[in-house]
Amino acid sequence: MNFDQHADAQQAQYTAELLDFVRIPSISALPEHADDVRQAAAWVVNRLQQAGMEHVRIMETGGHPVVYGDWLHAGDQPVILIYGHFDVQPVDPLDLWTRPPFEPWIDGNRVVGRGASDNKGNMLAPIVALESMLQTAGRLPVNVKFCFEGQEEIGSPQISDFLAQAKDSFASDLAVSSDGGQWSADTPSLTLSLRGVCGIQINVRGPSRDLHSGSYGGAVQNPIHVLSTLLADMHNADGSVAVAGFYDEVVPMTEAERRDTARIPFDEDEYREDLGIAAVYGEEGYSTRERTWHRPTLEVNGIWGGFQQEGIKTVLPSMAHAKITCRLVAQQDPATIRRLLQRHVEMHAPAGVEVAIDYLTMNGKPYTIPRDHWGNEAARTVLRDLYGQEPYFTRAGGSIPICGAFRDHLGIYTVNFGFGLPDEQAHSPNEFFRLASFRRSQTAFCRLLHALAR
Amino acid sequence: MNFDQHADAQQAQYTAELLDFVRIPSISALPEHADDVRQAAAWVVNRLQQAGMEHVRIMETGGHPVVYGDWLHAGDQPVILIYGHFDVQPVDPLDLWTRPPFEPWIDGNRVVGRGASDNKGNMLAPIVALESMLQTAGRLPVNVKFCFEGQEEIGSPQISDFLAQAKDSFASDLAVSSDGGQWSADTPSLTLSLRGVCGIQINVRGPSRDLHSGSYGGAVQNPIHVLSTLLADMHNADGSVAVAGFYDEVVPMTEAERRDTARIPFDEDEYREDLGIAAVYGEEGYSTRERTWHRPTLEVNGIWGGFQQEGIKTVLPSMAHAKITCRLVAQQDPATIRRLLQRHVEMHAPAGVEVAIDYLTMNGKPYTIPRDHWGNEAARTVLRDLYGQEPYFTRAGGSIPICGAFRDHLGIYTVNFGFGLPDEQAHSPNEFFRLASFRRSQTAFCRLLHALAR
Repeated sequence: MNFDQHADAQQAQYTAELLDFVRIPSISALPEHADDVRQAAAWVVNRLQQAGMEHVRIMETGGHPVVYGDWLHAGDQPVILIYGHFDVQPVDPLDLWTRPPFEPWIDGNRVVGRGASDNKGNMLAPIVALESMLQTAGRLPVNVKFCFEGQEEIGSPQISDFLAQAKDSFASDLAVSSDGGQWSADTPSLTLSLRGVCGIQINVRGPSRDLHSGSYGGAVQNPIHVLSTLLADMHNADGSVAVAGFYDEVVPMTEAERRDTARIPFDEDEYREDLGIAAVYGEEGYSTRERTWHRPTLEVNGIWGGFQQEGIKTVLPSMAHAKITCRLVAQQDPATIRRLLQRHVEMHAPAGVEVAIDYLTMNGKPYTIPRDHWGNEAARTVLRDLYGQEPYFTRAGGSIPICGAFRDHLGIYTVNFGFGLPDEQAHSPNEFFRLASFRRSQTAFCRLLHALAR
Repeated sequence: MNFDQHADAQQAQYTAELLDFVRIPSISALPEHADDVRQAAAWVVNRLQQAGMEHVRIMETGGHPVVYGDWLHAGDQPVILIYGHFDVQPVDPLDLWTRPPFEPWIDGNRVVGRGASDNKGNMLAPIVALESMLQTAGRLPVNVKFCFEGQEEIGSPQISDFLAQAKDSFASDLAVSSDGGQWSADTPSLTLSLRGVCGIQINVRGPSRDLHSGSYGGAVQNPIHVLSTLLADMHNADGSVAVAGFYDEVVPMTEAERRDTARIPFDEDEYREDLGIAAVYGEEGYSTRERTWHRPTLEVNGIWGGFQQEGIKTVLPSMAHAKITCRLVAQQDPATIRRLLQRHVEMHAPAGVEVAIDYLTMNGKPYTIPRDHWGNEAARTVLRDLYGQEPYFTRAGGSIPICGAFRDHLGIYTVNFGFGLPDEQAHSPNEFFRLASFRRSQTAFCRLLHALAR
C-alpha cells in the first residue's frame, strides 16, 4: 500500500478525528476557555504520539502552552519544523451560526465549525500525513519537529520569549507553517510576506463622573471630543499615517515587487461588491493590493464612551476609549511603533483631560521570505505538480507573529504551506474546511518532505 | 390655624406621601417603565383631587400622559399654571446607590431616592401647599391650573404638539415651574433663561460585515476613522462650533448681561476640584459661566463601534455610531440646528461609507424671561423675604422644553420657582431632597400666589 492508498483508506477516520478536534472550544482570547485550550493541547499530544512521533510533550510558556514532538531518524537530512496552532477565534455573533460552533458537522464536502479551517483542519493534515508515511514507508525522508501553539489568535504574546528560551529544542533548518491558504481550489500560491502587528488602547479621562451635558456642556473638555480629534489626527488627508516616524523603517517596494503584485488578478468591482462598499480607500499612490500587502496601516478596531443605548442620555462622559492596531512591514519594529503611537497621543493630548496608553499584548514583527529561498523552491515544485499550475507569489495583510520569532530566535525562514481557501469564513460564523483540501494537503506535505530531502 | 401651623401639622403626612410618590419607578426613558409613568400620573390625579382641585384628569399626548387639574374660583384674578413632571431619570449605575433607588429612605433631614428632588419633591410641594391654603383659608388668592407631564426627562417629545392642541385647557396668564432650584440653602435665585436642545445620531456604515483588519486594513474606509473625523471637524481650534450657520441666530450677550453674570460668585478652583479636572475648557473669549449660561454648545454624549471588550479583536468594523446633542440659546431653533448638523455631516462624509442621520426626539427651544417681568418681580419679593437676601439672577445650561412651548402656544412666560439645591445628585446615584426645602417651598408657593394676586 502506498501513501495515497493508505491515506485514502484512513480518510473517514481522519475526518472523524478532525470533528473531535473541532469540538474542543479552545478560544484563546477568553480566559474562561483557558482549560479548553489546554485540553486541545492534550489532544494534540495524544494524536502526535499515536502518529509515531517522539518526545511529545506540553511546554509551558507562561500563557497558553506549546506542544512539541519530533521524529529525528533521518540522519543528516535537514530538520523541518512543522508549525500550526490549536487555539481558535471567538464565535460571536453566535446567532449567525447555523448550528453551535463547537458541534461541528459535515455539510456535503465540508467540515463546518469554529477552527475547522483556521487552523485545526490545516494543522491536523501534516500529523496524519506523517502517520501515513510512517505506516507505509516506515520512515520519513527528513527529520521533523513539531511546534504547535495555543495563542496565535491573540497575537502570540509569550511566543517570542518562549522561543528565545527553548531555541535548542526547536533548532531546525526550516519551518513549514500549516497556517494559511491557497489562492483558489485550482490555483496554488506561496505567501512571501506577512505584516507585523502591534496595538495600543487609548483611555481618555475627563471629569471624575459623567456630567449633565446641559449644566456643564461647553465648559469642560469632553473626552469623546478629545479622542475623536486624537484619532482623526492619526491620518493625513492622503490616507497615510500621520504619526511621526511611522514610516522610518518602511522599505519602499521595488519595481519588481510592484510588477509581481500587479500581475496577480484582482477584480476591484467584485471586491467592492463582496464588501458592500461604493469605493475603496487608502494611501494615495498605491493599489488596493499594495495597500494590504506592502504598506503599513493604522486601524481603530473599537471605540466606546458615554451613552450607547437606545434613546437619549445627555451626558458629558467621564471616559472614552479606543483600541488601535497597526500592521507593519519591512523593518518596522512593533515595540518602536507602540512607543511612537504613545508619543503621538501624549504630544497631542490637550489640557483638561488625562490620557493613558495601554499596550495591547498583540505584538509581532513583519516577516518576509525571499522568493527564491530553497524552501520556497521545494514548495513551488510540489504545488505546481499537484495543481498543474505555477503558484502565485502572494503576500498577506495579516500577521503570524511566530514567523518573525522563528527567524529571530532560530535563524530560520518559514514556508507558508496551508490549504485554506479565501471563502472559508475564518474568524466568521459558519467557518468551514473542505474535505478535498484536507486530503490534498496530506499529499502535499508528503511530497514536500520528499522535496526538502537533500 | 394659619397656613404655616397647618402645614407644620401635616408635614409628617406629606413626607410619607413623598416617599410613596418616589416609590413609583416612573422612568420615562425606558419603555418597560411606561406603565409606571402612567401609575405616577394616576397617583398625581388622586393627590390633586384630595387637595381639592377640580376637573382633574389624565390627558393623552401620544406618549407619556399629562395630568391636568384646576381651581378657578378667584374671579378676575390671574390664572397661574403650575408646572412639574412626575417622570424620573434612569438609575444606572445601580451599584453606586446605597439602597435601591425606588425604596426611598429618610437619612437625617433628607429623603433619598430617584426623583426625590427632580422633580417629585419639588412638584408635590405646590399641591400640598394649595391643600393647606384651601383647608385654612377656604380659598386661593388666584385662579390655578396644573400641568404635570411625564416626559420631561426625555425632552418632552410630544409636549409642543400636545399644547398646540390643548391650548384652551391650559390658557393662563403665567406659568410657575417647580422644576429647578435655588442657589444655596441661604441664597435664593431666579433663573432667567434655559438653553434649548436638539440632537442627532450619526450612523456610519462601511463594509457589510466586520472585516479582518489585517486582510483589509489600509484598503477599506474604516467607519470609526470617518466618524472620528466627522466629530473632530465639528469644533474649531478655538472651541467654537464649526457647523456652518450654527451661530446665525445667536444673539450676542449684552454688556449688562455680562456684568450680571460676572457678579455672581464663581470659584473656578472649587469647580475644577469638584470635577477632578486640571483645567476648564471652552469657547475662547468667554468665562465658564458664560459658556454654560449664554453660549450654545455641541456635545457628543456617546460613541461606539467595533470591538469594545477586554483584549483584542482585530476588526475593521462595519458600523460606528455617535449621539450628539446641542444646547441652544436666544433665537436658535432646534429644527433648524438639526438640519444644519445633518447638512454638515452629509457634506463632510467621504466616499466609501454611507452616513445616515437619525433625529433624536429631544427637541426644545431656548427660553428667556425678562428680568423685570411681573412674575419674576413677585417671585423676587417672596424669595427675598423668605431668605432675607436678594436672589441672584442666574441662567441654566440645561433645558426644560415646555417653557418654550408655553411661550409659543399659550403666549405666557414661566417663572422658575423650584427649591432643589445643587448638591442633591439629580440624575445621579443617591439623589435626595432636603425636608427643609420641601417645607420651605410650601410656604414659598403660598406667598407667591398671594403676591401674584392683583
